[in-house]
Amino acid sequence: MESIVGRTAAALEGLRARAPRIHCITNTVAQNFTANVLLALGAVPSMTVAPQEVPGFVKSAQGLLVNLGTVDDERRASIPLAFQAAGDAGLGVVLDPVLANRSRARLDLALECLAMGPAIVRANAEEAAALSGGLGPREFAVAANTTLALTGPVDLVVNGTSAYEVRHGHSLMARITAMGCAASAVAAAFLAVEKDPAIAGAAALTVMGVAGEEAAQASRGPGSFVPAFLDTLYSLDAGRLWAAEETA
Amino acid sequence: MESIVGRTAAALEGLRARAPRIHCITNTVAQNFTANVLLALGAVPSMTVAPQEVPGFVKSAQGLLVNLGTVDDERRASIPLAFQAAGDAGLGVVLDPVLANRSRARLDLALECLAMGPAIVRANAEEAAALSGGLGPREFAVAANTTLALTGPVDLVVNGTSAYEVRHGHSLMARITAMGCAASAVAAAFLAVEKDPAIAGAAALTVMGVAGEEAAQASRGPGSFVPAFLDTLYSLDAGRLWAAEETA
Amino acid sequence: MESIVGRTAAALEGLRARAPRIHCITNTVAQNFTANVLLALGAVPSMTVAPQEVPGFVKSAQGLLVNLGTVDDERRASIPLAFQAAGDAGLGVVLDPVLANRSRARLDLALECLAMGPAIVRANAEEAAALSGGLGPREFAVAANTTLALTGPVDLVVNGTSAYEVRHGHSLMARITAMGCAASAVAAAFLAVEKDPAIAGAAALTVMGVAGEEAAQASRGPGSFVPAFLDTLYSLDAGRLWAAEETA
Repeated sequence: MESIVGRTAAALEGLRARAPRIHCITNTVAQNFTANVLLALGAVPSMTVAPQEVPGFVKSAQGLLVNLGTVDDERRASIPLAFQAAGDAGLGVVLDPVLANRSRARLDLALECLAMGPAIVRANAEEAAALSGGLGPREFAVAANTTLALTGPVDLVVNGTSAYEVRHGHSLMARITAMGCAASAVAAAFLAVEKDPAIAGAAALTVMGVAGEEAAQASRGPGSFVPAFLDTLYSLDAGRLWAAEETA
Repeated sequence: MESIVGRTAAALEGLRARAPRIHCITNTVAQNFTANVLLALGAVPSMTVAPQEVPGFVKSAQGLLVNLGTVDDERRASIPLAFQAAGDAGLGVVLDPVLANRSRARLDLALECLAMGPAIVRANAEEAAALSGGLGPREFAVAANTTLALTGPVDLVVNGTSAYEVRHGHSLMARITAMGCAASAVAAAFLAVEKDPAIAGAAALTVMGVAGEEAAQASRGPGSFVPAFLDTLYSLDAGRLWAAEETA
Repeated sequence: MESIVGRTAAALEGLRARAPRIHCITNTVAQNFTANVLLALGAVPSMTVAPQEVPGFVKSAQGLLVNLGTVDDERRASIPLAFQAAGDAGLGVVLDPVLANRSRARLDLALECLAMGPAIVRANAEEAAALSGGLGPREFAVAANTTLALTGPVDLVVNGTSAYEVRHGHSLMARITAMGCAASAVAAAFLAVEKDPAIAGAAALTVMGVAGEEAAQASRGPGSFVPAFLDTLYSLDAGRLWAAEETA
C-alpha cells in the first residue's frame, strides 16, 4: 500500500478549482451537514429527491451520491432514475447503504442499488458485512465490480486492482450524526475530479480524517467539533495534509 | 417533592454504559439536532420513517420517540406500526405532541397517539392544555394513564403516584429550534435505562436544564449556545449535577 | 435610492416586540437553520407541510414563506392551499424559487407560484433570469406585479415604485447552505411588521448582510460563521446597523 497524500492534495486543489456540482439523494438527518461539508470544501450541492426533478439535476451535475437513510417513497422512485441519468451523463455514483444491517427492507434496497453499478460503496463494517454476505472487503469489491470504501478505526479503500489504508480520524467523529454520510458525499465530490475511484475514495477519507484530527484539537466536545471541522475543511491545504501524514 | 439528582446521575451513568438505541419518528426540523443530542449523551439514534422499515428498527431498539412535527403521510402510517412494535418489544414510548394547539388535524392525531398508551407525554403548557381539554396536569396524567412531563419556566413531571419539579434551564433555550423535541428524545433514552417513567422524565429534564445553564454561561447568544450545549451534554457528570442543584 | 437603515431599525424593533408567527413551507435542507434564524431575530417559526395542517397554521400566522427546494408531493399539494389561506388572512407571501434555473419541472412550479401573487420574490441572478425570461429586474417586478429582492454582491430590491440597493454581506455567506433560504424567511418576518414590501425586503437583506459582516469578523471559516451569525442576529441593534452603514 502506498501513501495517497500527493494524489489527495492534487484532487483537493482540483476540486476547489472546478467547484463540481454534486447531487445528493440523502437522508433528511444528514442533508444540512452534508451540504455544508461540500460547500466548505468548494463543491456545490443540490438535494432534491422529487422524481420529476432528479434527472434534470443529475444531468447538470458532475457527481451523484445515493444514500439510503430515511428512504421514503419519493426517494425510492428517484434512485433508479438518478442512477440512469448518471449513467447517461457518464458520472460515477457513490452508494451509502446506511444501516443496511438494521432492517431487511433496507438491505434489499441496498442490494438493488448495488446491482445498478455504483463506482464506490462507502460503508462501515456492519453495513458491509450485511451487504457482502460474509465476503472479505476485496472479495466483495471484486464480486460487486465496485470500489469499497470501508470506514472504521483504520479505513480501507479497495477494489480489484488497488488497496489503500487511511489512518486518520478521531473518536469524536462517531459522536456527530451524518459524519459517515458526509464522507460519502465528499467521495462523490472527489470522484468528479479524480477518475480512479480508489484514489477518489482514499482522498475523501484522508481529507475527512485529517480535518477530524485538526478539529478535535480545536474543540471541547462534539458540539464545538462541528464548526471546527467545517472551518478546517475550508482551509485545509497540501502542507497540512503532509504534516498530518508524518505524525500519523 | 424530592430531589431526583441522585437518580439522574445514576441514570446518566447507565445510559453511557449501555448506549441504548433510540428510534425517533420525529420532524425534519429537529432530526439533526436530536441525533446530535442523543449521540453527545451516549445513546445511538435512528430516524427512518418508512413504514416498511420502522417495525424492524423499533424491534432492534431500546427506546422509541414519536414526535408529531412535520407529520407527512409516511409518518402517519408508521406511527401505529411503531407503537405496536414497541408494545411487542416491551418498550415504553415517549410522545411529543408538537404544536397540537395550532391545528385541529394535529390535535386529532395527538389524541389518537395518546390512546396508544405512551409511557411519557412531553409537552409545553399550550400543547398540554389542548390535549387535556382543560384538566390539570395530574388529573390529565391519571385520566390518560401516562406520565406528563410538562416543560416551562419550572418543569413538572407527574403521574398518579409521583411528582417532581425541575428548576433548571435558561431562557436562551426557547430561542433554539427543536430544544423541546430533543428533550423528548432524551426522555426516551433515559426510559431505556430507568423503568420508572417519572424518574426517567425528570432525569431527562434535569440533564437538559443543567446543560442549558452551563451552555448559557459559555455562549454569547443562541448560535454559540448550540455547540456549548452539546459539549456540556458530552461531559456532564454527577459532580456538576449536584453543584447545579445546590445553586438552583 | 435612499438609505433604508432607519426603516430597518424600526422594523427590527417592531419584529422583536410583536414576535410574529411565520409559517415556512421550505426545503428539508434549510428547515433547521431557517427556524434558528427566525428565533434568533425574535420571530416564531412553524414548518409543517402536510396539506391537512397548512391552512390552519397559515391562518394563525402573521407571515408565510413558500420555498421551492426539495418539493415533494405534499409540498406541491400544500402550496396552493397556503397561498389561499394567506390571501384569506390578508398576509403577503414571500416566494423563494430555489434553483428554478436547474430543472424545467422546478421552473414550471415557480411560474405557477408567481401567478398566485407573492408580495416578494427573493432570488439570485440565475433564478431571476430563469423566472423572468430575460426581462430586467424592474421590468420583471412590474410585469409580475411583485417586489423582486435580488441577492448578489450588491442586493437590489425593486418594484414599480421603489428601488433600494443593499451593499452589505460577506463572501463566506455563499459557503453556508440555506443562507438565501433564510433571507427569504427573514423577509417574510419583516413583511409581518412592515407593510411596504420593498422596505420589508430591503430591511431583511440589510439585517442579513450586516450580521454576515459582523459574523465574518468573529469567525475562522464557514463553520464558526454559523453560530457567530445567529449570535449577531440575536443582539443586533440600531446603533450597529448605523455603524455598518457608515463603513459600507
